[in-house]
Amino acid sequence: MNAKPYFCDHTTGMKFRLTATDPGTKARTGEIKIERGTIQTPVFMPVGTAGSVKAVHNRELEEDIDSEIILGNTYHLYLRPGIDVLRECGGLHKFSGWKRPLLTDSGGYQVYSLAENRRIHEEGVTFRSHIDGSSHHFTPESVIDIQRAIGADIIMAFDECTPYPCDYDYARKSMDLTHRWLIRCADRFNATEPAYGHDQYLFGIVQGSVYKDLRKISAETVSDRHLPGNAIGGLSVGEPAEVMYEITEEVCHILPADKPRYLMGVGTPENILECISLGIDMFDCVIPTRNGRNGMLFTTAGILNIRNEKWKNDFSPIDPGLDGYASNFYSKAYLRHLVMNKEILASQIATLQNLGFYHWLVRQARTHIEDGTFLDWKKSMTGIISKRL
Amino acid sequence: MNAKPYFCDHTTGMKFRLTATDPGTKARTGEIKIERGTIQTPVFMPVGTAGSVKAVHNRELEEDIDSEIILGNTYHLYLRPGIDVLRECGGLHKFSGWKRPLLTDSGGYQVYSLAENRRIHEEGVTFRSHIDGSSHHFTPESVIDIQRAIGADIIMAFDECTPYPCDYDYARKSMDLTHRWLIRCADRFNATEPAYGHDQYLFGIVQGSVYKDLRKISAETVSDRHLPGNAIGGLSVGEPAEVMYEITEEVCHILPADKPRYLMGVGTPENILECISLGIDMFDCVIPTRNGRNGMLFTTAGILNIRNEKWKNDFSPIDPGLDGYASNFYSKAYLRHLVMNKEILASQIATLQNLGFYHWLVRQARTHIEDGTFLDWKKSMTGIISKRL
Repeated sequence: MNAKPYFCDHTTGMKFRLTATDPGTKARTGEIKIERGTIQTPVFMPVGTAGSVKAVHNRELEEDIDSEIILGNTYHLYLRPGIDVLRECGGLHKFSGWKRPLLTDSGGYQVYSLAENRRIHEEGVTFRSHIDGSSHHFTPESVIDIQRAIGADIIMAFDECTPYPCDYDYARKSMDLTHRWLIRCADRFNATEPAYGHDQYLFGIVQGSVYKDLRKISAETVSDRHLPGNAIGGLSVGEPAEVMYEITEEVCHILPADKPRYLMGVGTPENILECISLGIDMFDCVIPTRNGRNGMLFTTAGILNIRNEKWKNDFSPIDPGLDGYASNFYSKAYLRHLVMNKEILASQIATLQNLGFYHWLVRQARTHIEDGTFLDWKKSMTGIISKRL
Repeated sequence: MNAKPYFCDHTTGMKFRLTATDPGTKARTGEIKIERGTIQTPVFMPVGTAGSVKAVHNRELEEDIDSEIILGNTYHLYLRPGIDVLRECGGLHKFSGWKRPLLTDSGGYQVYSLAENRRIHEEGVTFRSHIDGSSHHFTPESVIDIQRAIGADIIMAFDECTPYPCDYDYARKSMDLTHRWLIRCADRFNATEPAYGHDQYLFGIVQGSVYKDLRKISAETVSDRHLPGNAIGGLSVGEPAEVMYEITEEVCHILPADKPRYLMGVGTPENILECISLGIDMFDCVIPTRNGRNGMLFTTAGILNIRNEKWKNDFSPIDPGLDGYASNFYSKAYLRHLVMNKEILASQIATLQNLGFYHWLVRQARTHIEDGTFLDWKKSMTGIISKRL
């Protein structure tokens, strides 16, 4: 690890402002101001892996459930449609029609979880596509170039996401590699221009598995890069929730308070409330979308498996506690019928419901942080959102 | 066959009014006025087999592409969600949220094409469900009861849909059975009350395979029932298009001009224009929805296979010739990417495009019939809509 602090130049354009802090916890509200929009935090970011939040139209994201920022994925977009297409079009925003902020994951996680025959070395990662077995090579530099070409507003550094469990020695070596890659990412980022005339911002990623001493080193190292935002990776990979919370708390304690903190890949509604209370500002997770497609619904009254026989004759709206069209227009019995019949519309409705719920949850959290009532609200809400209906 | 003419009592509520007739062809425009809405004819009816037009939200049907009437299917709805659920809810309209007119196919076609171990006899049909192999029995009477319970505005008589090819003797016997079943359907219909306080109307179905003499007998027999509308079944089952047109012409010649004529299961855009010119008022077909889900798009500029490499970098809108959101918001290249990636959104977009196109086509036909320019327009349009882009 190169110990010399590294200062990234391109940090001035993003404005992050804390708007409230909770007296009883580390929870805070804020706003991230970038060219394509202002993001209220805490925020949940729907996952649009390959350039589409599955089963949802663009205008539904904007008008129905008011998503403020969505995710794309470097690994998937690099393989399909390919960077040549995105470059020619002028980036993913133009390609997909999404006009608000976009964050891209660097592809580190997917290379380890999806690609075949991957080989990690100092230079980068060689892997085979899960689609056609073709061979590819990612380096910290190429991953920055790809994300520039995608046109993401927020770009993630290339990291190795360690699995759980992971022995200490491997976690230490992997963390050091991630740190060296972070410097190469920042160098490349600084040496290249924003794409398509829009500012782009680089976030670093803290690793170190479940080891507090490694996480401390990593949080300090990443903080020292003075990037406009900092992320925590390598959690929500199978470890107990208590461990996730302990590590998140440890890292949040070190990461600068005046930069947004992004906990990658987390989580259940309960995980999100808990990690908001530890000082996290940004979340993404496939749970609402993927579980929705499988018939698991998150509602303001609790969790329900819509396949259950008990919903067969329940003609009440899916979730009158939410404002959205799908939550109010369709009944539980109708959605159950669609799921049992494998109708595409089932995925469409369930996805809108679950994303609508996740957005509602973090908005409620914001309001209660602002009102100074977060802790009590979180306690009562935890009982409701984990209830099985 | 009982030769005594049979007069159905419940024909007064539906108002069908011819609004224009084309001087050069048998094409005509009209409007069907029923309680839940006024349908402009010629009309194309999207197929919502099991209570959902696949991949489309209700409000998209109403607000984006303005579908005036959709189809449901007796066989599918009877198996799932089941008539008990629909009865308890107050019909399919309430169950699905669709507020406009609804027509249900009687299930005859599905019993023959989907069900296993079906056995046809005078009383009705015994069959095994394609879902779980369970045994069921449909009679003309039960099929009327089921459609009453579904709450369809237009109910189809139970018929046997003969396959193609079909020998003359079988076609004759089958047609006679369909005629006897029609009387039983009308009897049951007249002996039962409209469901949920809404008027319902029974249409008869002309059969007779590709035999003109049988079709003549069937058209006369069905016309003599004096039902509020008449349908032509047993076409678009594999016969050459020319045969379909000949039979349609023969039957339209006999069916009363002051009642709507519905050609079941037809067809391609070209088939539809041709059959409009022969005097057909109503169409339904799975081609726009099913083919759309497979990447075949109907546009105002021609037909395209969106999987083709040539669309990879075509960032122009899918079809600027249509008004709809999906046709204008998304590009060909983006839709191609979604199809190649098996994204659910691909089906959503393609379905809206294709149904939007079919609605546009029949609306254009209406305008040109009203203007007296139908024949010339049809000639020029046939070249465009069958062009492979």
